[in-house]
Amino acid sequence: MNSSEREALCRKLAERIYNLDSRVYTHVGSSLGRTLISPREKSVEILAREIDARPDSPFVHRNLALIANMARTIPDRTARSRAMKEYSAILKALSSPELALGQEADIGDKARISLNPLSKNQFTQSSSRRFTQDDHLVICIGRTFGSGGTDIGFQLSDQLHISYYDATVFRDVLDRQLAEKEGALSGSSMETMLDRDQKMKGLRRRLVDFYRFHGLPAEDALFFNQSAYIEQLSREQDFVVMGRCADVVLRNARIPHVSIFITAPFESRVRRVAELRHLSWKNAAKLVKKEDRAHERFYRRYTGLPWGSAVHYDLCINSASYGISESVELILGVIRARVQDDLKP
Amino acid sequence: MNSSEREALCRKLAERIYNLDSRVYTHVGSSLGRTLISPREKSVEILAREIDARPDSPFVHRNLALIANMARTIPDRTARSRAMKEYSAILKALSSPELALGQEADIGDKARISLNPLSKNQFTQSSSRRFTQDDHLVICIGRTFGSGGTDIGFQLSDQLHISYYDATVFRDVLDRQLAEKEGALSGSSMETMLDRDQKMKGLRRRLVDFYRFHGLPAEDALFFNQSAYIEQLSREQDFVVMGRCADVVLRNARIPHVSIFITAPFESRVRRVAELRHLSWKNAAKLVKKEDRAHERFYRRYTGLPWGSAVHYDLCINSASYGISESVELILGVIRARVQDDLKP
Repeated sequence: MNSSEREALCRKLAERIYNLDSRVYTHVGSSLGRTLISPREKSVEILAREIDARPDSPFVHRNLALIANMARTIPDRTARSRAMKEYSAILKALSSPELALGQEADIGDKARISLNPLSKNQFTQSSSRRFTQDDHLVICIGRTFGSGGTDIGFQLSDQLHISYYDATVFRDVLDRQLAEKEGALSGSSMETMLDRDQKMKGLRRRLVDFYRFHGLPAEDALFFNQSAYIEQLSREQDFVVMGRCADVVLRNARIPHVSIFITAPFESRVRRVAELRHLSWKNAAKLVKKEDRAHERFYRRYTGLPWGSAVHYDLCINSASYGISESVELILGVIRARVQDDLKP
Repeated sequence: MNSSEREALCRKLAERIYNLDSRVYTHVGSSLGRTLISPREKSVEILAREIDARPDSPFVHRNLALIANMARTIPDRTARSRAMKEYSAILKALSSPELALGQEADIGDKARISLNPLSKNQFTQSSSRRFTQDDHLVICIGRTFGSGGTDIGFQLSDQLHISYYDATVFRDVLDRQLAEKEGALSGSSMETMLDRDQKMKGLRRRLVDFYRFHGLPAEDALFFNQSAYIEQLSREQDFVVMGRCADVVLRNARIPHVSIFITAPFESRVRRVAELRHLSWKNAAKLVKKEDRAHERFYRRYTGLPWGSAVHYDLCINSASYGISESVELILGVIRARVQDDLKP
């Protein structure tokens, strides 16, 4: 299409919009009048220029929206349906590849989309990375203290029949792995459990010492072990992981995962914590603030990112708007609708 | 159930958990050993006490999670399925009403849930307010500048075949209403559009003067008019409304609505704005910051709340993780799955 053909196409669309406005105006019979209030020639010229410069022009779309809002109130059914059909046809024509300017300024971030199983990846069909049969469903959940995020994650893993990991579970698993590596635990059933409990404590101390020796604080040693373990797990199985900056760990490792943040207004969280722990409102508020700060420090330390902002996650749920089991249901719905095709049966 | 019956029930459940752990341990045959490493009597006692104090105890659930994670690796299929069945049965027993302590500390906020059509309202079935056939589907969308939120809202209204309102559309509609009220516009097609354009400007100035006279700044006058109009609309039709603090306006008016926030990382938004407006990265970044600040001021002025925090919305989407059309699809999926039953055909 050369430039004069393009010009003619834009003008034709502008005329269709103007005509639709006239027709809707006649049918509605409102004294509010037309949407396009300049004289015909001027309106068409402005619309055509806008469409030419940018087929997805907000100016054009807003005027169309106004016309459609009015069209929906046309009393005569046949006339209404005809007007709405023309509206849809104009919208479709505006987004046709013929008119497109090449540079589609979508907000999608290829790097994020390619790692997000909830996206159907239309944007990156030519990209190197897609969620495939070989990938596992890994759901990373961040949450504010008291938001019910932990319960939501746990129920999610239960309903999806996949494993569940959080800080406590990781510590336990890593302890066991270390113990196995060191050969310190025979696995013999003759050994008393109490013996083993004590040996475990000794081992953990040694692990900490080992990393201290290499110049790493114990906290960092644990985090790096966990991160390596999360990466390893994501190659082996489907699971839910709570916190641990797992979303950032997996993003850096270029491993697909769903990242969800669960939060609720401060007041709702304090109320819940007060009920659960039999605390006064004041003490519950203190605890919520303290725990949020600790999470924040942890996240910032290992990711360099501010914690808890919705922009780091694919999806963000306000649990106070649903309650725990409804939140689980909503997330399950999204996952089933969007990952289903790619999921192993 | 008296307290000794309850005690017996808790002990029985604790035993089932311990036995499941033993069985899984035998089948997996891993030297990693059991999850519950204290001697039988001690383990059962601790578990029983925890269950009694709080059937949804995180301690009990985490140990169960660990056992289930291991059970999923049992090589023998029949044994694995039997273990997983027992795991599910134990979970179910733990959440049975028999054990419940009355005070269910859910995070759900009755006031929020009762106004949220995306919630299926299980929590508030006895509550006064439910989304009914008489309510309209009102979708309030907040968004950060450059996140594609406006396009997402527009496409949403198009796909749902419902009206679309934003600041520009409202200003236009309110101008027309005022004009009608004042009887200044005859609606006669003889009047030239240009004449009307000029009259409209004069009217808007008069409106502003009118409210100034009553001690209200023009900005506030416009906002209060808009708010009243949003309330009125929500009693008449289904629609999408962009910004305008519509979520807070409707919450205060106790009118059900879906509130969605759309955002994306700063860098993604700057990139998009630079592309759309042919700006340098630096100038686009300046513009994004400036517009975000303006939104923030507006929201805080009329709601007293900080702007853009996920906690004020029912759902929050990171558009960079999906792109525009995928974001629309995801929201449509959630709305169709959850409001469908209540929606008029």
